[in-house]
Amino acid sequence: MAAPPPTCPRRLLPLSLGLFQGALLLFFAIFVTYDEPSVRAEDANLVANQLYGIFPLFQDIQVMLVVGLGLLLTFLPLYGLSAIAHNFLLLNFSTQWALVLQGLLHHFHHGQVHLDLHNLLTAEFAAVTVLISVGAVLGRTSPCQLLVVATCEVPIYLASEWAIVTRLGVLDVGGTITIHVFSCYFGLGVSKALFGAARQPVHPKETPTPRSDLLSLVGTLILWVFWPSFVAVLCQPGDAQHRAILNTLLAMSASAVTTVVASSLLERDGKLSPGHLQNGSLAGGVAISAVADMAVPPVAALALGSLSAVACVLGFRFLTPLLARKLALQDQCGIHNLHGLPGILGAAASAVAILVASEDTSGSRFSQVSPVGGNASEAVGGRWGDRGAGRQALCQAAGLAVAIGGSLLAGLLAGATLRLPCLARPPEQLCFDDSLYFNIQDQAESPGPGSTAEEEALALKERV
Amino acid sequence: MAAPPPTCPRRLLPLSLGLFQGALLLFFAIFVTYDEPSVRAEDANLVANQLYGIFPLFQDIQVMLVVGLGLLLTFLPLYGLSAIAHNFLLLNFSTQWALVLQGLLHHFHHGQVHLDLHNLLTAEFAAVTVLISVGAVLGRTSPCQLLVVATCEVPIYLASEWAIVTRLGVLDVGGTITIHVFSCYFGLGVSKALFGAARQPVHPKETPTPRSDLLSLVGTLILWVFWPSFVAVLCQPGDAQHRAILNTLLAMSASAVTTVVASSLLERDGKLSPGHLQNGSLAGGVAISAVADMAVPPVAALALGSLSAVACVLGFRFLTPLLARKLALQDQCGIHNLHGLPGILGAAASAVAILVASEDTSGSRFSQVSPVGGNASEAVGGRWGDRGAGRQALCQAAGLAVAIGGSLLAGLLAGATLRLPCLARPPEQLCFDDSLYFNIQDQAESPGPGSTAEEEALALKERV
Amino acid sequence: MAAPPPTCPRRLLPLSLGLFQGALLLFFAIFVTYDEPSVRAEDANLVANQLYGIFPLFQDIQVMLVVGLGLLLTFLPLYGLSAIAHNFLLLNFSTQWALVLQGLLHHFHHGQVHLDLHNLLTAEFAAVTVLISVGAVLGRTSPCQLLVVATCEVPIYLASEWAIVTRLGVLDVGGTITIHVFSCYFGLGVSKALFGAARQPVHPKETPTPRSDLLSLVGTLILWVFWPSFVAVLCQPGDAQHRAILNTLLAMSASAVTTVVASSLLERDGKLSPGHLQNGSLAGGVAISAVADMAVPPVAALALGSLSAVACVLGFRFLTPLLARKLALQDQCGIHNLHGLPGILGAAASAVAILVASEDTSGSRFSQVSPVGGNASEAVGGRWGDRGAGRQALCQAAGLAVAIGGSLLAGLLAGATLRLPCLARPPEQLCFDDSLYFNIQDQAESPGPGSTAEEEALALKERV
Repeated sequence: MAAPPPTCPRRLLPLSLGLFQGALLLFFAIFVTYDEPSVRAEDANLVANQLYGIFPLFQDIQVMLVVGLGLLLTFLPLYGLSAIAHNFLLLNFSTQWALVLQGLLHHFHHGQVHLDLHNLLTAEFAAVTVLISVGAVLGRTSPCQLLVVATCEVPIYLASEWAIVTRLGVLDVGGTITIHVFSCYFGLGVSKALFGAARQPVHPKETPTPRSDLLSLVGTLILWVFWPSFVAVLCQPGDAQHRAILNTLLAMSASAVTTVVASSLLERDGKLSPGHLQNGSLAGGVAISAVADMAVPPVAALALGSLSAVACVLGFRFLTPLLARKLALQDQCGIHNLHGLPGILGAAASAVAILVASEDTSGSRFSQVSPVGGNASEAVGGRWGDRGAGRQALCQAAGLAVAIGGSLLAGLLAGATLRLPCLARPPEQLCFDDSLYFNIQDQAESPGPGSTAEEEALALKERV
Repeated sequence: MAAPPPTCPRRLLPLSLGLFQGALLLFFAIFVTYDEPSVRAEDANLVANQLYGIFPLFQDIQVMLVVGLGLLLTFLPLYGLSAIAHNFLLLNFSTQWALVLQGLLHHFHHGQVHLDLHNLLTAEFAAVTVLISVGAVLGRTSPCQLLVVATCEVPIYLASEWAIVTRLGVLDVGGTITIHVFSCYFGLGVSKALFGAARQPVHPKETPTPRSDLLSLVGTLILWVFWPSFVAVLCQPGDAQHRAILNTLLAMSASAVTTVVASSLLERDGKLSPGHLQNGSLAGGVAISAVADMAVPPVAALALGSLSAVACVLGFRFLTPLLARKLALQDQCGIHNLHGLPGILGAAASAVAILVASEDTSGSRFSQVSPVGGNASEAVGGRWGDRGAGRQALCQAAGLAVAIGGSLLAGLLAGATLRLPCLARPPEQLCFDDSLYFNIQDQAESPGPGSTAEEEALALKERV
Repeated sequence: MAAPPPTCPRRLLPLSLGLFQGALLLFFAIFVTYDEPSVRAEDANLVANQLYGIFPLFQDIQVMLVVGLGLLLTFLPLYGLSAIAHNFLLLNFSTQWALVLQGLLHHFHHGQVHLDLHNLLTAEFAAVTVLISVGAVLGRTSPCQLLVVATCEVPIYLASEWAIVTRLGVLDVGGTITIHVFSCYFGLGVSKALFGAARQPVHPKETPTPRSDLLSLVGTLILWVFWPSFVAVLCQPGDAQHRAILNTLLAMSASAVTTVVASSLLERDGKLSPGHLQNGSLAGGVAISAVADMAVPPVAALALGSLSAVACVLGFRFLTPLLARKLALQDQCGIHNLHGLPGILGAAASAVAILVASEDTSGSRFSQVSPVGGNASEAVGGRWGDRGAGRQALCQAAGLAVAIGGSLLAGLLAGATLRLPCLARPPEQLCFDDSLYFNIQDQAESPGPGSTAEEEALALKERV
């Protein structure tokens, strides 16, 4: 039997990646340095204390993205190695690419880019959008295609984040709008443009097994545990950060319980769907990100968590099949249910929270909205200053619209480039299969004529 | 083939859980707020520093309970999804329930409950008792029954903890008596009342496979690594916390090595039992929790770790079969060996440590017992003040007796309610099987007549 | 069928381990104490802050060694339980043994050894060398043999570390030379002496399956995430530690991407080899450890990461087969590719970094080399004081030579002792199989005559 044809010219992936690494080295050699070290002892102590504050959160986020998200994607039973490896490759590539772009755009002073842990963190946030988006096309795309998605998405994310946060002044500490909503609709755009109007048939290898569902659920749990660090890492240290952590914990706890309620009501026999549990438990974390550091009362975090879990489960049960039927929209991981719907809910909640806080003019609750940091000057009047709460709420809505519209358009364009002949998709019968990307022993092949009885017994044993 | 009858009326679980979520929202809406934010900059810095001190430990504990304990329970080869999902659901439900009760009991000032990370942590400690107790009946109980256990156990735990710590003044920083001993005997009581005098036959699905044992061992290792955070999180910051971490590390290291010794001596052919390793390695962490912050010398931590590992392995080898034979007592996870026996050892060790410390009146060693915090006023005389060491040691014994007696009685009562007709147990042939609670593809079913040869090959491959 | 003969007298492992635990207890009882607690409140605060600085990093390292490294070793499909359990046992045994030796050598003041978290950490570093070394003989050695390796290697490591760091003054903050290179050549020496000139045949059970490769890759990812903590934990707090973290992150990110490039270019059809990914992604962490806290520019960290990944993949592809063919050298985990080659690269890089920094006498870059801690006195002149950069670079080379030569010699001697008759190796047909060390159900055994059809169906189902 001849080897199956590779999905893209076999040297395209290593050559383009190698070229990128070379260009990255050149860019770093010319432009990037570290900060000068502190001269005075008290400055050094300050550096140490700042590091102790941010580094544990940074590590939590790394675990989420590398281990948690990787495991979550292993629900395809024969595609675990590829899912986890492509996620890892994309995270690294996108972070490096974002470092270059960020350096050029934001941190270019006197011909030098100064690199610190904070830069790396924001570059990693840019990479997160890529990791979310490609969930829509998981298993039916080659690594070359994924790299093209990353190459397109990172600069568009940076532009979108600049428009939404810097220009519009949208409040979105944990990235509900800028990360989750943006990446969801970008991914859906890519999927639509890539697969066109042809509805993808159900592939025999895309049904999870109990074992692959178990590993995927472990990934969910890792994401669930460390999500508060993701939301709170860029908050103002002190009360705002404490509040962001508490709100996220409450929202995710409500999500977990409500997912069981909703899934059990919707599925036959009152059983649970593993996919609902894997995604619904995290929906609260997506929705709470925009309001986590605002002066919302604890009940709002609980309610938002419950509501987003319901939206997520309903999405899986009704909306995804509907979109597949009506629009031939392929969404392999259900990113619309985990990132799209809860993200829109979270954006709406942020507008409501701003309006409610401003009505409460008696002061006691209103002052909670203000970030209390080292300088207390902006404590009165909220973070939107003299803009007015109504206008700020409008800005939140405008930010949401920009995120959805821009990302959908850009995603469609990016998806169209994936149809270039040199980036041919893997043939349908080889989708969802690690053997296309990895040199692995195919255990199911019948033992050849030369195999002994002992080897056959061993092959059987290995299947245990 | 008709669908198997659900274990309890199919809408009971979502309806009762949904009702609880609604009540929780109401309670939070009326009573729960966050602390007012700090007004002065130095207060905000203090909040930030306290957060940096406690939050990494809090995250460690979350990983333990959600990922570590979840994986530990996956040793049943066909019940992994249910074990890990029920653990996750129970943790969230019990924490929320404990937050409500704690709020009503302890934190009700001026009509408001103030929520912070410390409250959440103590509520999670209450939830831990539930997670431990249900280990006795793992695989033979429905989620509805587990929720009833949680509903009963959390208030009883709070009462027991109040009696033991607040009234009796028992020293138990890591919860040896209040958490481990309490939850063990509560769980055994539930098991006894639920299963009655009928000895459960060995179920063909309850034998671990090497693969399920491997995942379970990974769970053990995660618990083993983060256990010091669990013990030390509520210690006085500074020396006492440092000592608690070191004592726990020593005890768990001794446990790990001694478990190998004991298991290898007791099993045939000098082989190891995976179950011994999964549990014995953690026994030292259970036993050390009561004395971790006391002025015990390092050798005491090592000895206690070794001793508790021996007790745990002996328990698995001899006591569990004996209790099953004589009392028809079902203990699926062996919680009596991991939490009961080492917990009693730890309680005894705390009494001895107090007596030894008081005899050593020369001062140098005695003063180590005292917590050295910001205020040095209570440094002299030990934490039991002018009560006298003998009386304090008696209190430790009394606390142990209260924990065992109270929890056994309460567990028997709680277990009796599980026999209510509306909470019918799963039928025996469907126990230990995920397919009762999850909509999963049953891979072992013979392919139907319509399946092609390709699909059969795929099904075989998926078994790899 | 008679039980297979145990590899060493069946009571040798528990008796020798038990004896060691007894001796450890005696040593701790006589000599080891904790520090006196702080008397003044500000001292207690200092203790608390130091703890908050080091403890999260310590926990990260524990996760790496216990969970990450354990999982990485599970690539042998039928040997997962043994690999992970032996790793865990060896870590604990070696740490305890290192604590004893370190106590006797370094911390013996006034007849007492004072134990703190820092001691435990350095003892764990000594244990790491054992865990790396035994990778060369994984699967073909009994636990007794592994304990003999640990017993020999820990004192030799302490001597080697003293010679290299204390006597020669080699700069090696993360252990490139003292840990990675040392343990690699020690392990190769053991392997050579143990297996002699007989080339080991390919064993049918040593081929990874996609499933075992997946778990192993998860182990890699855990190691990858927490590696910066391992490198930075012993750095001077402040700028040097910040720089060490950033350099490690950059090097490992470059490694991950470059591994994909190199593996894809070298393997047939442009596919990836799971083994390359599992090891190459970590190569940058090995190489950067010696220079992480030096004043190298960011591009150097990237380049070193890329280069070491290339060396690692080339090693797997060409050098390991060559050494096996020419020298009959057995290296089961490829430790020479992950720890040897990148370690030598890292040592060379440290010499180059020192020379380059000294040439750059304009001051601005040179001053970065100096550690900026509490005291700024040593800021000028570099850490090698008035020794001169050339001489310091020579010292780095000399340290590398000592590490390679000494460890190879000592490893050969240690390996020779493993051939003692009482330590007989497991018979070839039982290698790489958990059933030799664990009492597990052998699932592949054909069901006996008494088994019912239901049990057979179950056995089939368990294979899913």
